Amino acid sequence: MDIQQEMMAKAQAAKAAARKLAVLSTGVKNAALLAMADALEKRAELILEANAADLEEARGKGLKRSYLDRLMLNEGRIRQMAEGLRQTAALPDPIFEGDYSTVRPNGLEIRRIRVPIGVIGIIYEARPNVTADATALCLKSGNATILRGGSDAIRSNTAIASLLAKAAVKAGAPEGFLQFVEFPQREAVDAMTHMRGLLDLIIPRGGAGLIRHIVENSSVPVIETGTGVCHTFVDESADFDMAVNIAINAKTSHPSVCNAMETLLVHEAIAPEFLPKLSWAMGEKHVEMRADEKARAICPEMKEATEEDWSTEYGDLILSIKVVPDLDAAIAHINKYNTGHSETIVTKNLENAHRFQREVDAAAVYVNASTRFTDGFEFGFGAEIGISTQKLHARGPMGLEALTSTKYLIYGEGQVR
Amino acid sequence: MDIQQEMMAKAQAAKAAARKLAVLSTGVKNAALLAMADALEKRAELILEANAADLEEARGKGLKRSYLDRLMLNEGRIRQMAEGLRQTAALPDPIFEGDYSTVRPNGLEIRRIRVPIGVIGIIYEARPNVTADATALCLKSGNATILRGGSDAIRSNTAIASLLAKAAVKAGAPEGFLQFVEFPQREAVDAMTHMRGLLDLIIPRGGAGLIRHIVENSSVPVIETGTGVCHTFVDESADFDMAVNIAINAKTSHPSVCNAMETLLVHEAIAPEFLPKLSWAMGEKHVEMRADEKARAICPEMKEATEEDWSTEYGDLILSIKVVPDLDAAIAHINKYNTGHSETIVTKNLENAHRFQREVDAAAVYVNASTRFTDGFEFGFGAEIGISTQKLHARGPMGLEALTSTKYLIYGEGQVR
Repeated sequence: MDIQQEMMAKAQAAKAAARKLAVLSTGVKNAALLAMADALEKRAELILEANAADLEEARGKGLKRSYLDRLMLNEGRIRQMAEGLRQTAALPDPIFEGDYSTVRPNGLEIRRIRVPIGVIGIIYEARPNVTADATALCLKSGNATILRGGSDAIRSNTAIASLLAKAAVKAGAPEGFLQFVEFPQREAVDAMTHMRGLLDLIIPRGGAGLIRHIVENSSVPVIETGTGVCHTFVDESADFDMAVNIAINAKTSHPSVCNAMETLLVHEAIAPEFLPKLSWAMGEKHVEMRADEKARAICPEMKEATEEDWSTEYGDLILSIKVVPDLDAAIAHINKYNTGHSETIVTKNLENAHRFQREVDAAAVYVNASTRFTDGFEFGFGAEIGISTQKLHARGPMGLEALTSTKYLIYGEGQVR
Repeated sequence: MDIQQEMMAKAQAAKAAARKLAVLSTGVKNAALLAMADALEKRAELILEANAADLEEARGKGLKRSYLDRLMLNEGRIRQMAEGLRQTAALPDPIFEGDYSTVRPNGLEIRRIRVPIGVIGIIYEARPNVTADATALCLKSGNATILRGGSDAIRSNTAIASLLAKAAVKAGAPEGFLQFVEFPQREAVDAMTHMRGLLDLIIPRGGAGLIRHIVENSSVPVIETGTGVCHTFVDESADFDMAVNIAINAKTSHPSVCNAMETLLVHEAIAPEFLPKLSWAMGEKHVEMRADEKARAICPEMKEATEEDWSTEYGDLILSIKVVPDLDAAIAHINKYNTGHSETIVTKNLENAHRFQREVDAAAVYVNASTRFTDGFEFGFGAEIGISTQKLHARGPMGLEALTSTKYLIYGEGQVR
């Protein structure tokens, strides 16, 4: 079997479906989403069986417990997937919404409306729930989808995708709207990245290595998601309790996610008083601290940080700590080492808050709150396909709107130029 | 001299300037734009001298008259460039404009504001006015610019860029905000396309070959502009005079631009009556017509069209013509052969107008008007950096807004998740 050819056939089928999806009514799209939710719940045993086989093989490979946990499905998680589909059905349909309208002096009426992007490729790793989430958001926004999940979840994903596709088509979605890639080979990913003209967008969701490979090799536009070296800057005027509380939350509430803090910066004027409090609280949570010389002079229990630490996304209970002379140094450090994800300042100083938000270059810049809030649901979008760390098309949490393009509609009465 | 290294130095200087540009006040940006306009007019003789040398060399190479005309500058054209700079100063500043604002149940205040993209590379061909236009739009939107113009205009562009940079910096723009690439080698373009992390966006303006080369090789995000295979569909119910008038305008008013018509489709029910009128009018304008069999059966004076004609952007007084059985066939033909630029239907039928606008996949879809209107000025944006034919980030005419990204600002009072 020629993977190249099979992938091409999938992309062509998706493109044909995309034309029909683009004008599908909101009612039919919602009916399809609800039918998909029901199908997952009714046929949960099929999914669990496939998932058990995936898990067995993964355990045999000696994969990490946290990895196995992401791979694992149970009745509750399947119900959550179904709930997610129903929530997507309840969201407003972004398609044909207008966002610009004018009448020109020559009488031309110009409107800009939202339209689907077309065919979206999602390349992801272990978590099987992405199969349902991504399909739901793409369908609601009128896009055809090509899903390529991680090979360790191949049986679970195949089962889920097949149930989703059948249920949705029965409810009126166009045949072929969901293409699932069953090839575990890297070749399948590379084929996707070279389908400019058939694929309109690729969203990689996974480790930094996967994302870099795709970004560097794709002629199809890519939206980078999910790498987060996030900072908390504790300013001279910070409320210490608030600062410790925010830092503990940002570091320890879910260390493996991209909006968790990796580096804490502290103003040198308060470092002698603040750092011991922080160190005690982090120690309680078993956080390993890697600090610069100035911080270690205050808290000798901290380990030594190397240059590499400042750009490392630990995804774990490890925190790098640095003492800075002032706000300018904090902003300069962040703009040098961050990944453009989420940054926060703890301060009582209005001018510093304002300058931090203006001058820090990131998708989400906080004052007196945890970076952990960077999330489509927390931001009020009702959904999230990922968190963009690039500046083009979408930045920060991406909801349905991020999966749309626009189109100008112009009415005339014979105007010529 | 190592081009690779020199290009890297330029990009780093641009990135450093971009940090300052991002927070530069509207007042200073406008002062810089006005100073640039004055400098071009006051030192016009420097530009004209450089341009004369470019023209002499180009004439020696035996380049086409239309090409030489695009390259040529005179007092009037320099005044137009200066006028363009002053118009850009008069436009509203898009930076820090908000477009989303919400307060979440937990009290977090979330706003989304426009911010610059960062460093934008513009790669263009002969026309020296792009040097001033692109610099103005990038500066107004707070972006640093790396300009790489065509080698035939190298002396003119160098003179213009140098005057612009000096005048703007004197008026308060940050040193290095405008980087001009003086290397005629392809290597300089290739260096730009591999500067992911330093360059945030590349906009190629030029021939299809240049654009394809950049799109296929760039790891920096690219916005494709300016390829237009535009169609006019004359429906069964069309007013014949209006249809001829629109077709003549779309084909002949400026045949070399991307919003000119390349293919006319006509409903078979009216073809016998309409095509002779069209043929006569196009003949008057010396348009070569290449038609399918059905059209040639009605107008034997037309030449035979080949499959290649349907996807050709002539950029010249040539028109391909095809008879279609109905609206569906017209839409299917357009969606197969168009480049996603501009399409128009001439009709009196409301349902057909509506379906054409919904189902045709293009940046601008017209009813009863010439495709020639697709343009930032005609659409009321007051400026244009190009016309995007892709779906990501910007589609259709790109004004200042297309040169911006967004950023979320979040205010809290110690919230954690």
